[in-house]
Amino acid sequence: MTQKSGHRILTNSGIEDESKSKSESSSSSSSTGMRLIVPLQGIVQGRGGLILGSVIPCAMFYFLQFYLKRRRSPPSREQHSSDPPSPTTELSRSASRSNLLLSRASIGKPHVSARVCSIAKANDSPYYIGLDKASEDPYDRLSNCNGVIQLGLAENRLTIDLIENWITEKLNESILGEGDSRGGLSVSGIATYQPFDGMTELKVAMAGFMSQVVGRTVSFDPSQIVLTSGATSAIEILCFALADHGNAFLIPAPYYPGFDRDMKWRTGVELIPVHCRSSDNFTLTIPALDQAFNQARKRGQKVRGILLSNPSNPVGNLMTRDTLFDLLDFAREKNIHIISDELFAASTFGDEEFVSMAEIVDSEDINKDRVHIVYGLSKDLALPGFRVGVIYSYNESVLTVSRKMTRFSSISAPTQRLVTSMLSDTTFIKNYTERNRERLRCMCDLFVDGLKELGISCTKSSGGLYCWVDMSGLIRPYNEKGELDLWDKLLNVAKINVTPGSSCHCIEPGWFRCCFTTLDEMDIRVVMERIRTVIESCESAS
Amino acid sequence: MTQKSGHRILTNSGIEDESKSKSESSSSSSSTGMRLIVPLQGIVQGRGGLILGSVIPCAMFYFLQFYLKRRRSPPSREQHSSDPPSPTTELSRSASRSNLLLSRASIGKPHVSARVCSIAKANDSPYYIGLDKASEDPYDRLSNCNGVIQLGLAENRLTIDLIENWITEKLNESILGEGDSRGGLSVSGIATYQPFDGMTELKVAMAGFMSQVVGRTVSFDPSQIVLTSGATSAIEILCFALADHGNAFLIPAPYYPGFDRDMKWRTGVELIPVHCRSSDNFTLTIPALDQAFNQARKRGQKVRGILLSNPSNPVGNLMTRDTLFDLLDFAREKNIHIISDELFAASTFGDEEFVSMAEIVDSEDINKDRVHIVYGLSKDLALPGFRVGVIYSYNESVLTVSRKMTRFSSISAPTQRLVTSMLSDTTFIKNYTERNRERLRCMCDLFVDGLKELGISCTKSSGGLYCWVDMSGLIRPYNEKGELDLWDKLLNVAKINVTPGSSCHCIEPGWFRCCFTTLDEMDIRVVMERIRTVIESCESAS
Repeated sequence: MTQKSGHRILTNSGIEDESKSKSESSSSSSSTGMRLIVPLQGIVQGRGGLILGSVIPCAMFYFLQFYLKRRRSPPSREQHSSDPPSPTTELSRSASRSNLLLSRASIGKPHVSARVCSIAKANDSPYYIGLDKASEDPYDRLSNCNGVIQLGLAENRLTIDLIENWITEKLNESILGEGDSRGGLSVSGIATYQPFDGMTELKVAMAGFMSQVVGRTVSFDPSQIVLTSGATSAIEILCFALADHGNAFLIPAPYYPGFDRDMKWRTGVELIPVHCRSSDNFTLTIPALDQAFNQARKRGQKVRGILLSNPSNPVGNLMTRDTLFDLLDFAREKNIHIISDELFAASTFGDEEFVSMAEIVDSEDINKDRVHIVYGLSKDLALPGFRVGVIYSYNESVLTVSRKMTRFSSISAPTQRLVTSMLSDTTFIKNYTERNRERLRCMCDLFVDGLKELGISCTKSSGGLYCWVDMSGLIRPYNEKGELDLWDKLLNVAKINVTPGSSCHCIEPGWFRCCFTTLDEMDIRVVMERIRTVIESCESAS
Repeated sequence: MTQKSGHRILTNSGIEDESKSKSESSSSSSSTGMRLIVPLQGIVQGRGGLILGSVIPCAMFYFLQFYLKRRRSPPSREQHSSDPPSPTTELSRSASRSNLLLSRASIGKPHVSARVCSIAKANDSPYYIGLDKASEDPYDRLSNCNGVIQLGLAENRLTIDLIENWITEKLNESILGEGDSRGGLSVSGIATYQPFDGMTELKVAMAGFMSQVVGRTVSFDPSQIVLTSGATSAIEILCFALADHGNAFLIPAPYYPGFDRDMKWRTGVELIPVHCRSSDNFTLTIPALDQAFNQARKRGQKVRGILLSNPSNPVGNLMTRDTLFDLLDFAREKNIHIISDELFAASTFGDEEFVSMAEIVDSEDINKDRVHIVYGLSKDLALPGFRVGVIYSYNESVLTVSRKMTRFSSISAPTQRLVTSMLSDTTFIKNYTERNRERLRCMCDLFVDGLKELGISCTKSSGGLYCWVDMSGLIRPYNEKGELDLWDKLLNVAKINVTPGSSCHCIEPGWFRCCFTTLDEMDIRVVMERIRTVIESCESAS
């Protein structure tokens, strides 16, 4: 249904042209004249001679224009609009409204903006088609055992019980304060206007939480925090602040398909994938980055920065300290920004150590104002419904404008109080983070082992809510078409929604992102069984 | 401090040019060549002869370009970036990092986007200067009796007690459900991803509330509602959807100063004020609208719609049914949109009747898809901290893309549950709305009477949280400078922050918007006393 509407928009803005509206056709002779004159002037000025070649034809066409102006129809009401309408007109207008409306019913639809076309088009991607399909017919072991199993959404449901217990116990206290005295918290403090970029108390609690997540290796400064309604708007605000329409960001690929939407739709910035390969375990290399940068410059594109996701989405690997130093050097050399998306910083469960870009920046004294970190509570605290995102920047100018832009996406005050209280409960947070890591590790192992039994391997995953699965052995032919055929079979025959690598701009076909955190252990068996049937059908076909 | 940062941004993007960065200067000879060639080519192509005038100089300069290319310095590392660095390089790079960093410390600051300049500049307006000043040194009768009295912020604190009572009693129940069974409400239903454009339950409750506000003359359809984090983002989303960069909206002036920020900053749309005058009681006339439309078209601007605020902000008057019909006719004739901002629909307290654009649209059968209503709970339910805004549109395409855009500004789920419960409590809502109207009327009367005693008159106000005050008799000279002198005296001598008409694009000098809903009765006496001292100083000066 959403897609249908999308097509309607395309039709609207594609077919309907301002020149078709009634008001313009009323002065058609003059506008026809102008339509003739303007392009002709363009031609003359663009390719004419030095003096004779431009002056003479111009003069000729100005005379023609003058002639056409004199031949216009008598002045319409539109041209004398500043005169008040006469009383007779007033009366007759009211009387003839119904006729007028009938005659105008045939007027075309009003224009929508051209930029909405790209927004409407977004649904063509398999990523969105799969998400929609899974949400329309969601699998449930008891009530809909033939439904679609959602492995396409990075949502953590493994720890919902921990969150539920905390909220059930602490809701009233966290929003209204304790007991009768209400602990100094007034309703007026949440009902009235609050700072759009977040309450100070939440910034302090968030800085503490972020520091806890990185193992206290970095101390985050609350005054460098800007809070937004979800990390999605944090990233968009940074794009608005760092780049103009047509500017570009380099982005290691495969990357999260949502960036094509979140970073590009309204800002008009462009994304240049820097392809990483399975032979490098999909890690980013500086030469590849440098090549992409230079190619962009040769095309005339202005590169404004690099967007990293660490832990990587969709691969799930982490960036080493050395790579981060190299990236910072590269950004300095090219005088560009780094946006480090660290949304899964606490959702790490492998042997590798997570290193925040903040630690790299802190270890050096020279100017840090090209580094901006994106964070949020949707993944690490499993609270996507709360819409809590973070910009952490070292650049005062970027902080200032980002604060201003949060008026379009601020977090509602009751939620801020609730989250402040939750993040300040360090015992809960410590316990939550540990148990979350255990459960992630357990589910990841189960999932990877299940695939292994089917002969399917994954890259070594150390963070995130997903595995990056190599099904290239199952696709025929070995290209994007083969990959999408398999994706289609998985979705429509086996009823499993996974994200194909092509949606993530992966250059090698046959890779898929599978999120394992919306499942429980019993569901995993069902998933493996369904995949097995697809493998068998692939084998019997070949 | 915010302003200082603003200036820093201007300096950054103003002074620093990409050509200054180290990476570009490394290939300086080639770029100097290009810098020479490109403008010369421009000149040649722009004003050259038909054949000889363009071909011969072009050929000459291409040869020059070729010559310059050959004279370039030997290929730098940048040009061979795809080669992996040799092991020796790797080792020495690590060792020389500190030197490298020291040498790079002198590199300029990274660029920020040009569009942030306009965002940073916004603080120059007296509207923002006054708001900042009042929030830095807020008046409090007991603790800071010499502070600045805030009459510049349209925030309703008259009914905070009613809201407080309701929330204190119902918080747990509304978010978690009743009793042990939790009434079917699970924490999972707020922690996990929810529809970005709002939960269905809240849409249904909102439609009911909106209908109650307009006295049940219209029935609103929940499927035409898109919920956003505050009306601010509702308006911005509509601008993105209806207009492209450089397109314009007509807007009756005086208008709310925030529109220059909310509608223009990120969308790049332009606002064309349609001036209303005191002789018409600042009501909008169709001839004035028509004139503004035609003038815009003559300038080559594409007008995409009209933004109405009804009840008007800052004047506080209401649009008649006839005016609304005429506006709809006008919009149809010109094939443009109408955005009707009805944020103060329930905050009406005069004899005039509020008529929603929805009622006008409903009374006619022909296509309605040019009409979009903006609403929210910041004013009518005195909950600006909750960030609950509404787009109500009759256009399926606009609804579709607006829903997609809410991913950047959705309301957090706990707040949605709380508000759903509050709006569904129709007894509370009915009582609240009635008492709110009584209190608004009472405060407005007190304020207007106080000014009257000082010899100052206001336009007849029927809605909103403010009066539109005529102090033209107090300004010398009778122009914008005189108005701003008086504003400055009120702010810095009398310590009252009001919004000058010039910030609202009012064409007549000497008008001020004064919000009276952050005060209580005793504060009003202080306000009048402070204004009296300014009047006396004005009189003694003349």
